[in-house]
Amino acid sequence: MKKSDYLVKRNEYFKELMVKEGIDALVALSPENVLYSTGAYIMTQKLIRDRLEIAVFPQKQEPIFIVCGIEESGIKEQTWIKDIRSYVEFKESPVQFLVDALIEMGLEKGHIGIEKHYWNAYYYTELINAMPDATFVECQGIFEDVRVIKDPVEVEILTKASKATRKALEAAFLTAKSGDTELDIAKQIKNNLMNQGADEMAFLVLGTGKRSMLVHPMPADIALSPGDIVKADYGGLFSGYYSDLARSVVVEKPSQIQVEVYKKLATIQKKIINAMKPGIRCCDLFNKCKELYEENELPFIMPHIGHGLGIGLHEDPMLSPLNEKKLQKNMVINVEPLVITDGFCIHLEDLVLITDNGVKILTGAKMSNELPIIG
Amino acid sequence: MKKSDYLVKRNEYFKELMVKEGIDALVALSPENVLYSTGAYIMTQKLIRDRLEIAVFPQKQEPIFIVCGIEESGIKEQTWIKDIRSYVEFKESPVQFLVDALIEMGLEKGHIGIEKHYWNAYYYTELINAMPDATFVECQGIFEDVRVIKDPVEVEILTKASKATRKALEAAFLTAKSGDTELDIAKQIKNNLMNQGADEMAFLVLGTGKRSMLVHPMPADIALSPGDIVKADYGGLFSGYYSDLARSVVVEKPSQIQVEVYKKLATIQKKIINAMKPGIRCCDLFNKCKELYEENELPFIMPHIGHGLGIGLHEDPMLSPLNEKKLQKNMVINVEPLVITDGFCIHLEDLVLITDNGVKILTGAKMSNELPIIG
Repeated sequence: MKKSDYLVKRNEYFKELMVKEGIDALVALSPENVLYSTGAYIMTQKLIRDRLEIAVFPQKQEPIFIVCGIEESGIKEQTWIKDIRSYVEFKESPVQFLVDALIEMGLEKGHIGIEKHYWNAYYYTELINAMPDATFVECQGIFEDVRVIKDPVEVEILTKASKATRKALEAAFLTAKSGDTELDIAKQIKNNLMNQGADEMAFLVLGTGKRSMLVHPMPADIALSPGDIVKADYGGLFSGYYSDLARSVVVEKPSQIQVEVYKKLATIQKKIINAMKPGIRCCDLFNKCKELYEENELPFIMPHIGHGLGIGLHEDPMLSPLNEKKLQKNMVINVEPLVITDGFCIHLEDLVLITDNGVKILTGAKMSNELPIIG
Repeated sequence: MKKSDYLVKRNEYFKELMVKEGIDALVALSPENVLYSTGAYIMTQKLIRDRLEIAVFPQKQEPIFIVCGIEESGIKEQTWIKDIRSYVEFKESPVQFLVDALIEMGLEKGHIGIEKHYWNAYYYTELINAMPDATFVECQGIFEDVRVIKDPVEVEILTKASKATRKALEAAFLTAKSGDTELDIAKQIKNNLMNQGADEMAFLVLGTGKRSMLVHPMPADIALSPGDIVKADYGGLFSGYYSDLARSVVVEKPSQIQVEVYKKLATIQKKIINAMKPGIRCCDLFNKCKELYEENELPFIMPHIGHGLGIGLHEDPMLSPLNEKKLQKNMVINVEPLVITDGFCIHLEDLVLITDNGVKILTGAKMSNELPIIG
């Protein structure tokens, strides 16, 4: 199947869920759900939040895509939706365009799913005031339920992205040495990632020595010394999809405790990954991880131990204590245990695809238990 | 003055405006206003929208900063705010923390400024239901009024960022040649920008030949041919601030019409920049630009001809037809006229600082009227 076939298939799945939940129309508002449902990657949607792009999927008619005039030509090249209506920024209200579209669909008194977790209070108020007889319900769950299962086009992108991200980091660590600064290594990782085909860097966290204990240290002009742990957590954007990887290494001379903690953590990560398969509940994985930390006498401070990855950086399913959802085939999940102890931090993060009876590790890593030494 | 002194000064300015508008407390919610008011750059605030960071500035008491536990250590390193309260993600409601803080300040019936243009309908509903006797008003205007005038720390960052961004692009164009692809040039620009000290690439639009006519073409695997216009519009992030620059060049052999259109557009851009000084209204600059297009028989399709730049990519003042605000000293503004005609597009964008009686061009460009030739 081609990419466009998958887009149409997603739309069919939306319709099934809309019928089930009694929703007359589904309105995509966030950059993630607009991309996922229409196929259009609109760069400015993340950068300029006030420039609205709105995709309306009614249960019974053809979809309507309301776009900012300045973006129209680029969107037409990308989307499968035929009815595109453009508004003039700063002159016309895109919310009014949405109201007009919904009324045209006969939904003045409709039951309409919108992204209340995305749209701001200002636009939301404009919408409900303009359509007092309609009911607006949160539709985040519908998008999540479809997006959580990755189709083959998505698995292909995420696999490629995940491997490229690991290689870019490993290559930078291979040539790093005592005396290099955090910024030197960060620059090398970024250059490598672009050369590996990323469209953009999305984020890069890197800290050495005691700074590794910060959860999200920004790389600074600090030189590496023998014995320092170097912790990095970073990702890029590939065709609109994130990669996300964490690694921890030591400069030249590991201490006994660093080696031991690394070995314990890598073993825990492997045990969690080996326990993942369809039917297992997310909260059970979280609790299992917590127990393994306790058995190994490691401090456990994580609010979650992993998360879905895709168009969103943290998406369903979250491996968190209250999430009772079960793993399903073709979910794609980052598993990222972290330990902060004895003046350093070890963080490991790998991406797995849930298969029929287990997982496939998309990062393509060897998953050794030995703390890597650089320099 | 140090950076921290400017942060305290901003807070004093907020208080003045709060008194003037009768607001008891100002609540910063967006990544931009949290960074601007607290000094803390929290990387995940843009990446993970559901992870809330909330800074509350009461008129009469000390500020309170509500942060996600996982980010607390990094935030403490950066902010001047002393009262930091952290919530446990997925277990505790950050909105409830905000409610508790406001009630503690005696503002159960208060008049509270929040960012309705940022906060989503879901959290907003939780907040107003929890505090039915309080009044919540949009406070975007207060943040905009303070942010629109850049302090010296900001001007320094924006100047450095703007020059680095121009140099990175010019260097990539200098070595580009017929046969190179759009992706080759894009990669070179990105590498150059990182080497020039950007923390991140923010966006990169690049199109050649007929694809230059798209407003936001993504660079593709398309080779440059003699006579092609190469249009690029891109920016990076430097210490949380954006750069934003557009340039158009031709490969080897310019046509007569390309040279003429470029000359006309560069002349118009120069005239607009020369007309900028304190007291001039934004809409008058827009209208002047429109008239110049008409005089030169160029098609005018822009909803705006420029925008403020800072922590936000498009911020106040917008040079748009309905904006009657006047330019003031120490505003920083991108001026970006664009023409799509005869099968190609020319786009120019430079950054200026409003001075006592005119502008300083921060891009540091020579502003020639001659279409640059590459290859």
